[in-house]
Amino acid sequence: MNIHAKSGRLIGVGTGPGDPELLTLKALRALEEADVVAYFAKRGSNGNARGIVGPHYRETWIELPLIYPVTTEIHKDSKDYRQAISDFYEESVHKVEEQLEKGRTVAVLSEGDPLFYGSYMHLHVRLSDRWPTEVIPGVTAMSGCWSQTGTPIVQGDDILTVLPGTLSEFELTRRLADTDAAVIMKVGRNLPKVRKALAATGLLERAIYVERGTMANTSSARLADKAGDEAPYFSIVLVPGWADKP
Amino acid sequence: MNIHAKSGRLIGVGTGPGDPELLTLKALRALEEADVVAYFAKRGSNGNARGIVGPHYRETWIELPLIYPVTTEIHKDSKDYRQAISDFYEESVHKVEEQLEKGRTVAVLSEGDPLFYGSYMHLHVRLSDRWPTEVIPGVTAMSGCWSQTGTPIVQGDDILTVLPGTLSEFELTRRLADTDAAVIMKVGRNLPKVRKALAATGLLERAIYVERGTMANTSSARLADKAGDEAPYFSIVLVPGWADKP
Repeated sequence: MNIHAKSGRLIGVGTGPGDPELLTLKALRALEEADVVAYFAKRGSNGNARGIVGPHYRETWIELPLIYPVTTEIHKDSKDYRQAISDFYEESVHKVEEQLEKGRTVAVLSEGDPLFYGSYMHLHVRLSDRWPTEVIPGVTAMSGCWSQTGTPIVQGDDILTVLPGTLSEFELTRRLADTDAAVIMKVGRNLPKVRKALAATGLLERAIYVERGTMANTSSARLADKAGDEAPYFSIVLVPGWADKP
Repeated sequence: MNIHAKSGRLIGVGTGPGDPELLTLKALRALEEADVVAYFAKRGSNGNARGIVGPHYRETWIELPLIYPVTTEIHKDSKDYRQAISDFYEESVHKVEEQLEKGRTVAVLSEGDPLFYGSYMHLHVRLSDRWPTEVIPGVTAMSGCWSQTGTPIVQGDDILTVLPGTLSEFELTRRLADTDAAVIMKVGRNLPKVRKALAATGLLERAIYVERGTMANTSSARLADKAGDEAPYFSIVLVPGWADKP
């Protein structure tokens, strides 16, 4: 064994919500030091995280795209889907570990923040006990959305609830009725249900809709003013708190 | 009137949680362009946000510290306290607006993210209708804490609840019992109460305590292992979700 051999190192790199300028200095340094740059993406796309770091591309990178299996024909709650996804993550762990075993520094890109709903977590829980690991936090999509729209989200003793739009209308309504502020993620085709829950709790007038926050093609509106129920998967609804402004 | 006069511009700048490398490229550019750098601080201190940007200090800056009134003798819920704080924010708005009227670009530093429990919000709501305003999001303290400790906080359809430690034991317990993941902010002297609420909901074993996340003098531990109930105001408790890992 060559005792001078470089040891593999895993870095989860938060790339921020979309605007390439929202990368941190620390993320930038990790990209400069990386031998391998890995990222999750759908077939036919490099994914948002790889797009965000585009301006900082280095020719020395070994790129390692981790392409999600095509799963549109399988129902999300089915055993087959869970098995396909579970196999995919195991395979991804194997691909990343092959690089670590070569003594390489592997940066895994993660849109927003790596440990906040990020796919990187699936690698982290399987590899961080075996390899030196660092996680570089990023600006979350929700921070990008409330900053872009100038929406003070929480102040003082406000409670914030982050809700996936996939919850049932009952659960969304119950939880919206019992918080000072809320962020609803993964709105997409759940928008009609989200609207109903907001209307039932008297919050529709206060809600703000943002799609592709901080990206070049972003748009936003008061939800009450948004025509139609078309929404991309990564759209977000903000319900600002801070009702009792001093 | 000189039509070439530069127009005043307000920028809320998120400085991130503590590590100066967690500043974004956009925040760095704002600091380079700023004529005036304003920040909230307690008497006798420059505050965390100003400390974080220290490595990027520029001699051309006009510094505008906004010093909180001494309020330790007044009870926080009293009318006198509310009046003193309200007067202070009005005075701060006036000081910042004086600079904007001179055509200057004023960067207001905000630890973490400006619109997420940040004092900047008090200026934002009073000035953003009158002056061109931009908010640059930052990495939040909670992202810094879960990244530093390698704690996957939420995944998939998890619900995250952000709770101030100032809530009653009953409210903390009720809400901890009804979420997948939680972040408890402003722990400080509320730690004994926070421990009780976590124990009552069976979450104490899972909870992670972090003080001064990502700062040079940070420390962290499983809360169950932390001896004593001393905690600084800006300490955080994380209760990770993602119980059903695929």
